[in-house]
Amino acid sequence: MTDEEARRRVAAARVARLASVDPNGRPHVVPCCFALSGDRIVSVVDQKPKQTLQLRRLENIRRCPDVQLVVDHYDDDWTVLWWVRVSGQGRVVDRGPARDAAVDLLATKYEQYRDQRPAGPVLVIDITRIIGWQATTG
Amino acid sequence: MTDEEARRRVAAARVARLASVDPNGRPHVVPCCFALSGDRIVSVVDQKPKQTLQLRRLENIRRCPDVQLVVDHYDDDWTVLWWVRVSGQGRVVDRGPARDAAVDLLATKYEQYRDQRPAGPVLVIDITRIIGWQATTG
Repeated sequence: MTDEEARRRVAAARVARLASVDPNGRPHVVPCCFALSGDRIVSVVDQKPKQTLQLRRLENIRRCPDVQLVVDHYDDDWTVLWWVRVSGQGRVVDRGPARDAAVDLLATKYEQYRDQRPAGPVLVIDITRIIGWQATTG
Repeated sequence: MTDEEARRRVAAARVARLASVDPNGRPHVVPCCFALSGDRIVSVVDQKPKQTLQLRRLENIRRCPDVQLVVDHYDDDWTVLWWVRVSGQGRVVDRGPARDAAVDLLATKYEQYRDQRPAGPVLVIDITRIIGWQATTG
């Protein structure tokens, strides 16, 4: 998969799974909505009902900025499987123009964010690597 | 979501995303097929075309057994979203009865493993915690 194609698939995906590392060095993974813009991915803790534990991703990233996201396609026909994995450095942006720009990007992609603009902190990930895999090169 | 319901959804899911931690303390995440049996989840590196880097999950887990898996449902209607996250301790089983039993479980769930029994090492995860979340409790 070309780098361009991998980026196209990331941009088109509606959900990713975000992995971070907690203060005890253990992995943490959670599905998230996100938007891609250039070499950045942005996400936000939104108004979907949340328990406190779901904010752990932000606490983790404030301490350890290394993250990975994966987007993928599953089908019981394994010849059409693919995934794209993004590595990056995350940072939590609580306020300011960078936060507002991130929310604008998310609102462009998801109507829910247009209907109700999220109030929480934003996660900005500076992409360091993108790797794509697919079952067949067709 | 009850624990029973969370386990039911994990058992029914065809794909999970597995997070581990690499030797540098960085997160690693990859989609994987798996099977649930009691308090264990099993997975295998199978015959889908692989690059060497996809074996990293096994190297990671040999060094650091802490893993998380997440299964989830995404829909543009956010009122039907849910996920279940499983924390556990992983170990790599290269051969023997435990490996054969794991492959049997996977072959029961996935016809591809019946058609071609996988030859690689098996990942066995002893579950320590299951957490379920859903957007609406309806």
